[in-house]
Amino acid sequence: MHRALTDFATNSKGKQLHPTSLLQASHGRVDRDSLESLAGQSILNPRQFDRQTVIAIAQLAALLETRNVEMDKPLDGKIAITAFFEASTRTRLSFESAVQRLDGKVLSVPDGQVTGIAKGESLADIGEMLNTYGDVVIMRHPDTNSIDEIRKNLQRPLINAGNGSGHHPTQALIDWYALLKWRPELRHADCPQDRRVHLGIIGTPGSMRAVKSFLRLALLFNGAVKRITLISELADPVGLELTDSIEESPIPIDMTNDAQEVMPDLDIIYVNSIAFLGDSYRNLDTRYKLNRNSDMKKDAVIMHPLARNDELAEDLDSTEHNLYFAQAAGAVFVRQALLTAVLDRLGRISGI
Amino acid sequence: MHRALTDFATNSKGKQLHPTSLLQASHGRVDRDSLESLAGQSILNPRQFDRQTVIAIAQLAALLETRNVEMDKPLDGKIAITAFFEASTRTRLSFESAVQRLDGKVLSVPDGQVTGIAKGESLADIGEMLNTYGDVVIMRHPDTNSIDEIRKNLQRPLINAGNGSGHHPTQALIDWYALLKWRPELRHADCPQDRRVHLGIIGTPGSMRAVKSFLRLALLFNGAVKRITLISELADPVGLELTDSIEESPIPIDMTNDAQEVMPDLDIIYVNSIAFLGDSYRNLDTRYKLNRNSDMKKDAVIMHPLARNDELAEDLDSTEHNLYFAQAAGAVFVRQALLTAVLDRLGRISGI
Amino acid sequence: MHRALTDFATNSKGKQLHPTSLLQASHGRVDRDSLESLAGQSILNPRQFDRQTVIAIAQLAALLETRNVEMDKPLDGKIAITAFFEASTRTRLSFESAVQRLDGKVLSVPDGQVTGIAKGESLADIGEMLNTYGDVVIMRHPDTNSIDEIRKNLQRPLINAGNGSGHHPTQALIDWYALLKWRPELRHADCPQDRRVHLGIIGTPGSMRAVKSFLRLALLFNGAVKRITLISELADPVGLELTDSIEESPIPIDMTNDAQEVMPDLDIIYVNSIAFLGDSYRNLDTRYKLNRNSDMKKDAVIMHPLARNDELAEDLDSTEHNLYFAQAAGAVFVRQALLTAVLDRLGRISGI
Repeated sequence: MHRALTDFATNSKGKQLHPTSLLQASHGRVDRDSLESLAGQSILNPRQFDRQTVIAIAQLAALLETRNVEMDKPLDGKIAITAFFEASTRTRLSFESAVQRLDGKVLSVPDGQVTGIAKGESLADIGEMLNTYGDVVIMRHPDTNSIDEIRKNLQRPLINAGNGSGHHPTQALIDWYALLKWRPELRHADCPQDRRVHLGIIGTPGSMRAVKSFLRLALLFNGAVKRITLISELADPVGLELTDSIEESPIPIDMTNDAQEVMPDLDIIYVNSIAFLGDSYRNLDTRYKLNRNSDMKKDAVIMHPLARNDELAEDLDSTEHNLYFAQAAGAVFVRQALLTAVLDRLGRISGI
Repeated sequence: MHRALTDFATNSKGKQLHPTSLLQASHGRVDRDSLESLAGQSILNPRQFDRQTVIAIAQLAALLETRNVEMDKPLDGKIAITAFFEASTRTRLSFESAVQRLDGKVLSVPDGQVTGIAKGESLADIGEMLNTYGDVVIMRHPDTNSIDEIRKNLQRPLINAGNGSGHHPTQALIDWYALLKWRPELRHADCPQDRRVHLGIIGTPGSMRAVKSFLRLALLFNGAVKRITLISELADPVGLELTDSIEESPIPIDMTNDAQEVMPDLDIIYVNSIAFLGDSYRNLDTRYKLNRNSDMKKDAVIMHPLARNDELAEDLDSTEHNLYFAQAAGAVFVRQALLTAVLDRLGRISGI
Repeated sequence: MHRALTDFATNSKGKQLHPTSLLQASHGRVDRDSLESLAGQSILNPRQFDRQTVIAIAQLAALLETRNVEMDKPLDGKIAITAFFEASTRTRLSFESAVQRLDGKVLSVPDGQVTGIAKGESLADIGEMLNTYGDVVIMRHPDTNSIDEIRKNLQRPLINAGNGSGHHPTQALIDWYALLKWRPELRHADCPQDRRVHLGIIGTPGSMRAVKSFLRLALLFNGAVKRITLISELADPVGLELTDSIEESPIPIDMTNDAQEVMPDLDIIYVNSIAFLGDSYRNLDTRYKLNRNSDMKKDAVIMHPLARNDELAEDLDSTEHNLYFAQAAGAVFVRQALLTAVLDRLGRISGI
């Protein structure tokens, strides 16, 4: 029932991450109590996770990545609805692949804007409609308050796959899955000093959901992240929502608008320099673009939630700095782990 | 194999309908002969049903609603094609959920207008194409004559999911499933006098397929419907097609353009005041809008095929007048019942 | 486990082709060695096939057409991604039906242009993304060089479902499946002289992928095709890519712009007179249109990859000249055969 890792396509270029590193570090154990607490829960905001749960999801994802669980059919008889009111082929297919790999079924709304989830129908009415159609709803929506609207009537667990400038909790779990495979010791409450990392984020957490959610989880790993630098041309890249958490965090957090200055000290460079401002996107300045000649530490890794624009040059793809391809390659497994927990089917996976 | 009713999400607000009421009234029996007559048949027009068949479909839907039949996999190996030339996420997902709950598979055309069921290709050629792709075709199309066109070459059963201003037979079955769960005695050829209902329809059956199909089935229940009032601002809301049937019906049918006048006497108020006129929709006058302050009988119920516009105020949602949420919640089960019968898989459902 | 042929819908009109003719001619044998050579391979260009492989695929398709293989679940656990950057409901549903008939699963991108496979994202990045989503990628794209672009990072087998004016290899296999069912003796390296065929192609192989790919395979059957006539108003309908192959072929190949002149001598008339010129289509002259009164041999057959425009009159549909409906009816089986071979699941089909 086990399959060779080579049997499964991973990233074509860049650093390779193996799930066995994380599994061995955990002695093959999965923190089942943390996972069971997710049964029937909606996944809306990374704030709902503690560090233990993030690690538990990563452990289960690693287990799923090393094993061929289709035989277990963990989501047999379950239907997931992917309701994408803002088209995103990458995220939608990632969830749909996760569901189908576990033998669940999918009802797909590829683009609610054009396929007429009805002209003027309220999200509350749509939530009511979906109650009897499936067992879990995965929604992306351009409006931040869409989550509250659909939940007025929706009685099924809702997974937020991105709501305007709000949150993108599953992307943040994917990001940390990559980091925990890269350096399993980051999971510790008290990571050895010489293994602690300086994390740089190029982007605007206040208005960009992916970096906002990533930063939120980073604050949980305060025994492993020794410093966070926010790199942005805006005076206040953090925004109201995260301000308190950042001020309370034991992690020193500083800000700069000069990427070049801080770059040589960073261990992890998280890039997402497309700013989400109202209904439109805006590219940041060329000072924030990365390429093969950027002045990075030899073993620094670059992360990016993708899709990318020219902020991340293709000449980096075949370097060891490229963690973003491995990061993307873990997405389906993290979503498999999360869906299995939310749909209360951990018991179907043999040996956990 | 049985599951608790609470295991299945029903409507979030309004009146709750339990399938057990209908099952108990039928002593758990399903009229299998009527269902078997549907094997291999197309479902095009509610005119093709007699009262017995409507009741039999409702009985099977009730049975499916109380039972977890996924274990039986009744549609295993069958492929349903949802060919929506007019986008309707609500109806499409409802059918696709029904197919997948029964372990059938779906080929989905979410919007034939934009995804290029070919530029200028005739419906006859499309019907020919679909013959080898699936086992049943579920079509929605803006043209009334689309049914005849596709059937020129199509050899598979066709289920009409709405054809222009033509018919919407499965919606009408859903409507009557709700009514038969609400008051199982309505199924009788001779319902007790004090349980007979006065039915009001706000809308224009002549040009609106949902109310037209609902009215067609209402005429079958002439032992339970004591009077029908059509409420419309049009001089002739009935249209040519239904005129003969209405004149022949033993049910007294009257018309008014004053909703307020008749409202206090109605037991059932069916609302669908968006008129389908040619290619566009037109909202009826505010006189035909319902809200919490409308002058209704205490136990009157409101029905609506949804999606709604402002003709039905949200403040009604949490009242016992709201039958429309329960009506919508039964849709997947009615479509399951119908597909099982059409695809000749009744034998796969244990215990009927 | 066998099912009657009549159990399966075939073409509604025109000549009927039975897979048993081809199977009997092959004494029920399938050339498994040729099929096994396709395991893990991409299907990009008909040039990659030899005659033996074309015949082997047709044999397996015939076997699948006569048998109900769903019980074998040959693609169980496999996921196919249909990535259509140019919408084609006909081709997409054909592949998706093939996958599902074999119990595989589908991730569907009905229209990459409108559902936002990301704004400006490169095909190389899309290829990288798809590596962990599925087991095989079926792509249609308006650009000829899209194949090379996506394969920069894609590590899964790619099936070319049409790339601009490039190729359409699976359509060509479908075409030859129809011809080999029609006259099984065409498979021989040395077909009896009186059974050899004169093949006419109305269209422009140089710029139209379907006829280009069909012609490419026709060159393999040089023991059965006695002459090929290209009928086009263009001075050079062949184009650069095929010129060498045509010059080297032992089959005499001539060109004319007068369809009427050569028509009475043709055994097979392949029509695809919609020219693909840059981004637009252009209809050929009325001289190239066929109808019931066209001066054809009594037993000549007409082929067309469909969808058609007015180059092929509907009055031909109910004649024995109509091979195009039977040709289309074989599509799902050919794609089943190909996917089973590419995904290395021949061993799951009992009895081959």
